[in-house]
Amino acid sequence: MATELLELIEGEKINELSKKLQSMNHIDIAKSMIELDDRELLLVFRLLTKDISVEVFSYLDKKSQKRIIELITDNEVKDIIEKLFLDDTVDIIEELPANIVGKIITNTSLEKRQLINQFLKYKEDSAGAIMTIEFVEFKEQITIKEAIDNIREIGINKESIDNCFIIDNKRVLKGILSLRDLILSSENSVLSEVMETNIVSVKTSEDQEKVAELFKTYDLLSMPVVDAENRLVGIITVDDIVDIIEQENTEDFQKMAAMEPNEEPYLETTVFTLAKHRIVWLLVLMISATFTGAIIQKFEDVIQSVVVLASFIPMLMDTGGNAGSQSATLVIRGLALGEIKTKDYLKVIFKEFRVSILVALVLSLVNFIRIYFFTKVSFTISLTVCISLFLTVILAKVIGGILPIISKKLKLDPAIMASPLITTIVDTFALMVYFALAKLLLGI
Amino acid sequence: MATELLELIEGEKINELSKKLQSMNHIDIAKSMIELDDRELLLVFRLLTKDISVEVFSYLDKKSQKRIIELITDNEVKDIIEKLFLDDTVDIIEELPANIVGKIITNTSLEKRQLINQFLKYKEDSAGAIMTIEFVEFKEQITIKEAIDNIREIGINKESIDNCFIIDNKRVLKGILSLRDLILSSENSVLSEVMETNIVSVKTSEDQEKVAELFKTYDLLSMPVVDAENRLVGIITVDDIVDIIEQENTEDFQKMAAMEPNEEPYLETTVFTLAKHRIVWLLVLMISATFTGAIIQKFEDVIQSVVVLASFIPMLMDTGGNAGSQSATLVIRGLALGEIKTKDYLKVIFKEFRVSILVALVLSLVNFIRIYFFTKVSFTISLTVCISLFLTVILAKVIGGILPIISKKLKLDPAIMASPLITTIVDTFALMVYFALAKLLLGI
Repeated sequence: MATELLELIEGEKINELSKKLQSMNHIDIAKSMIELDDRELLLVFRLLTKDISVEVFSYLDKKSQKRIIELITDNEVKDIIEKLFLDDTVDIIEELPANIVGKIITNTSLEKRQLINQFLKYKEDSAGAIMTIEFVEFKEQITIKEAIDNIREIGINKESIDNCFIIDNKRVLKGILSLRDLILSSENSVLSEVMETNIVSVKTSEDQEKVAELFKTYDLLSMPVVDAENRLVGIITVDDIVDIIEQENTEDFQKMAAMEPNEEPYLETTVFTLAKHRIVWLLVLMISATFTGAIIQKFEDVIQSVVVLASFIPMLMDTGGNAGSQSATLVIRGLALGEIKTKDYLKVIFKEFRVSILVALVLSLVNFIRIYFFTKVSFTISLTVCISLFLTVILAKVIGGILPIISKKLKLDPAIMASPLITTIVDTFALMVYFALAKLLLGI
Repeated sequence: MATELLELIEGEKINELSKKLQSMNHIDIAKSMIELDDRELLLVFRLLTKDISVEVFSYLDKKSQKRIIELITDNEVKDIIEKLFLDDTVDIIEELPANIVGKIITNTSLEKRQLINQFLKYKEDSAGAIMTIEFVEFKEQITIKEAIDNIREIGINKESIDNCFIIDNKRVLKGILSLRDLILSSENSVLSEVMETNIVSVKTSEDQEKVAELFKTYDLLSMPVVDAENRLVGIITVDDIVDIIEQENTEDFQKMAAMEPNEEPYLETTVFTLAKHRIVWLLVLMISATFTGAIIQKFEDVIQSVVVLASFIPMLMDTGGNAGSQSATLVIRGLALGEIKTKDYLKVIFKEFRVSILVALVLSLVNFIRIYFFTKVSFTISLTVCISLFLTVILAKVIGGILPIISKKLKLDPAIMASPLITTIVDTFALMVYFALAKLLLGI
């Protein structure tokens, strides 16, 4: 599709190009435009009708939006901003460089500017920050027919009219009416009679993660946002929630791999930013590994006399780390999805304890057979290694299961208790047990 | 809410209970019912009107659904199944034990039974398996007024009528009309004139992950599913997509922590199943750690002569592992979100190489200062440790960045190339470099 478009552009076949653009999905047009040079970009953008050009603009990546704003006239900027949905405008203002924002703000009407400012005041990641204010609202006393007539008149401009929101004279939210019910109800019914009054709504300050949870629990397509006095101020739509879910998951993945979260796509993030987000945790964990080093130094005499003991250290450490991170991952994920609550901590400990005994038994047994029968290691050393492994796996799994819950209880993010941190803790324990056992069993 | 309900049940206040139930959200009723005993469960279930009881039933967890099916009469089962949406019925049949399924199947009409069977034939995780067949379809030649009248007559039973689907006489999908456009169009227009013909649809065999991607790209609320001849056979709705996204993320989390994926919630999974899903990878990784052990054994003489070298092994291994898993996580996530393509492999290698040099420099420098100035370790040993660390971090990050891409290229899941596997590979390299350098610099 993109190549076909490119051929039409290069051939300067304006008529065909214009026809082609009319037949294309707006999102696909936006995708193709990303690869054009400035002249071509401007050509295609200006061939679109005004309404469609705004639509396409909202789907472009930030870099292309920036290029277009720089290329077009002030009047064209004004047209775009006035027609753009408010939440898209706010996104653009928050992310584009100051000179571009300047060009936008100068070309925005006062009314819209005030709205934007109000939006920018909401805390990042709160319901207020992600809501849109383009929605359909009706007073509770009007009839279905009046509502439908009204939608026919003004509805075309609204981002989401899958639900209409019913308010009283003080703008307090009273009910919801889906388009489906609007069509199915008799024309003379009054909205207050047919509306759904069992409303799931959130305050503007609510965290977006909590909002996403409500969407999942109640299978919603949109949700009203109210202020402290229960007055309707905006709505959140499910397409934004899908993006938020992915964003929250990405954050968890990053935290669990010991990184500070970063929302930018990988390929668009600078090397310096990538390094900055990784270095802190790596440093912390490297310094913590000093403990394990200190333990080995303390037991230098043990290694000196039975040097083969050193060769089992990597296996012990890796297996302990892996066993712990399995448990931590399951519990972190369970907490994130609401399948595990902090009050379940005893259940988790008991479950991990039983699982770990099963797993530890199999691992130690296999390991014993491998070491004792297939290498020249003595019975006592094999036993030392396998008992240490057994105890390490059990401890790793119990610690891996419980640390995320403790973390949540302390109002920290459970995801930071993932494999890297647990590995460091488990390593220390594994080595202490290992050397103590070696001294005991080998009589060093 | 649940306690209030429980009080009404225990006080056997049937009238108040019935009133209370009428005022509650169906999902909240389902949630409260989970904690009731058999007698109470049956009481509440029978107090609900038929339509609502089916709705509530569909939101119950599998365990409570099973209990209800066991408790109620055959006629009641029949009522539920006939009213239940087909996709919910299929879910129940796939997950409940055989004796319960027997009770259900005996009480299902032939027509519905055939539909269920057809559904069960679709491959798990395909579009066919997740679609619903309750949707609104119209022939392209009818008018808006006829369509609205038709919806008024039959629409109440449909799971999603946010979009209507337009087909020709051979049931081939021709267009989509949103409820919004249905209301906004003039009554006498013919559907084929006003419908959207730019349709995003999928074949029944399409993978659900791909379907979710399309929903995200095009901000859809529902999507038509067609057979090989482009005939409309079902639709997929966004609420199911939200669940699928979370499910796919959970799978990735589990695979990245070296576990076989498991869809059941943690607390409901048996100890044996949990152990089974974890043991295979732990065994594989434990056996692979033999390589690292072998390397240490091979260099036993080095450790014997400079035993302090052993104390830096954990730090080297952990830091290498952490550095590698950071890169792997970012790339795996980027691939999953479509932000990184396999053709970007050179960009990723180059980026990781530059990031790793920055990170490795800081880490080695801090480590050198710590070892040389704050402990009694000699200059040459400190240098050995820090050069090894430097090289290990660079290798870990480049390998961590490229292995997921190679994995995807080989049509394997990139998520299996996460920290545990990379740790094992990086460990081997780290130790080889470390001992080789030690021999060289210390002249052992």
